[in-house]
Amino acid sequence: MSMKRIEVQKKVLTKNDEIAARVREQFHERGIFAVNILGSPGSGKTSLVELTAKLTARRIRAAALSGDQATENDAARIRAAGMPALQITTGNECHLNASRIENVLDAPELAGARLLLIENVGNLICPAAYDLGEAAKVAVLSVAEGDDKPLKYPGLFQRAELLIINKIDMLSLTDFDLERAAAHAREVAPHIEVVSLSCRSGEGLSGWYRWLETRVPELSPIDRSA
Amino acid sequence: MSMKRIEVQKKVLTKNDEIAARVREQFHERGIFAVNILGSPGSGKTSLVELTAKLTARRIRAAALSGDQATENDAARIRAAGMPALQITTGNECHLNASRIENVLDAPELAGARLLLIENVGNLICPAAYDLGEAAKVAVLSVAEGDDKPLKYPGLFQRAELLIINKIDMLSLTDFDLERAAAHAREVAPHIEVVSLSCRSGEGLSGWYRWLETRVPELSPIDRSA
Repeated sequence: MSMKRIEVQKKVLTKNDEIAARVREQFHERGIFAVNILGSPGSGKTSLVELTAKLTARRIRAAALSGDQATENDAARIRAAGMPALQITTGNECHLNASRIENVLDAPELAGARLLLIENVGNLICPAAYDLGEAAKVAVLSVAEGDDKPLKYPGLFQRAELLIINKIDMLSLTDFDLERAAAHAREVAPHIEVVSLSCRSGEGLSGWYRWLETRVPELSPIDRSA
Repeated sequence: MSMKRIEVQKKVLTKNDEIAARVREQFHERGIFAVNILGSPGSGKTSLVELTAKLTARRIRAAALSGDQATENDAARIRAAGMPALQITTGNECHLNASRIENVLDAPELAGARLLLIENVGNLICPAAYDLGEAAKVAVLSVAEGDDKPLKYPGLFQRAELLIINKIDMLSLTDFDLERAAAHAREVAPHIEVVSLSCRSGEGLSGWYRWLETRVPELSPIDRSA
């Protein structure tokens, strides 16, 4: 990368961080727990949001923002699952940024929400660098992608609090090893929590739900501190 | 995107195009047919190159360049399959560019090669914008990713000559529909050829090999015009 380009890139990220700080403040004031969900195209981000719509229905007001280069398909899928959702199409851009989130903070879909799931553009690289003001980043990796991905795309996993390994119903058709994947993730990100599940079969979804419960107190039906 | 950023991005792409033109000229002079292979992380790009190493062994001198943010794993896999391969690690960058290719044109791995497989960084967005001087772009999409991806990431498919739909051995575990995927690809890229295969089972690999044969005459054992 040229020095000129690096300078512009730094300015863009500094500007993004300023906006992200404002967005984070807004989330705090409104009592919104925002999760930035990152992963490859087809890793299962939309499916996870759809299932979360069902898991959280009648327990908490939740909403989703869905990023893609083109099409409104994901938001339509999420709305069909019962969660208000807004599509953000990014055109040539390969990631969401804080400004795009700030622009929609007053959208009716977000009104009264306590949980906001932000589905980023499908990409393991660029979205990782952009703070959206979220409370936590969650990485989604499908077993079809291979258990080496945390080593090959370390930036994303280093910034994620939780790694969701999805599509475990496909394990027998791949060389993916769950323990090796978790070890690779911890090699680049020692702090990371790992949950394995299948959005298709429903197996392991309780792990994701438990993580949400620990972060969003209203979701917890019982007093776990007792 | 800010005007400043768009201007810098345009300059970067113009500069890249100039270098790509030089690289293309070099490929032409040396009689190298270069393929730029693009797809998501885990779509099967490395597996395709490994199998191509076996398919082309003793028929043509071939070599590979493998791009990743980190690790030398892919080049090691390709070398183990019998093809000279060089890893290009991109650090924070989410795509290869023409300059990185120009820098390695005289590497011993490429000496005498007539076929060069360039495995781009796993990403459906950013690599599509960077001409590497290749003769053709090939998009690899795994059935695990979903048949909607050509609509959601049109830029890549519009620039590809060939779409390889990989992992058809997993079809029964997904909602992926081969005809719908091909229709979606042709909706954004009417010219695109589509080949379905499984690097794991070997089914359909002849389709990829036939495409290579039509582009690299030395590969063809018989006179197909007869």
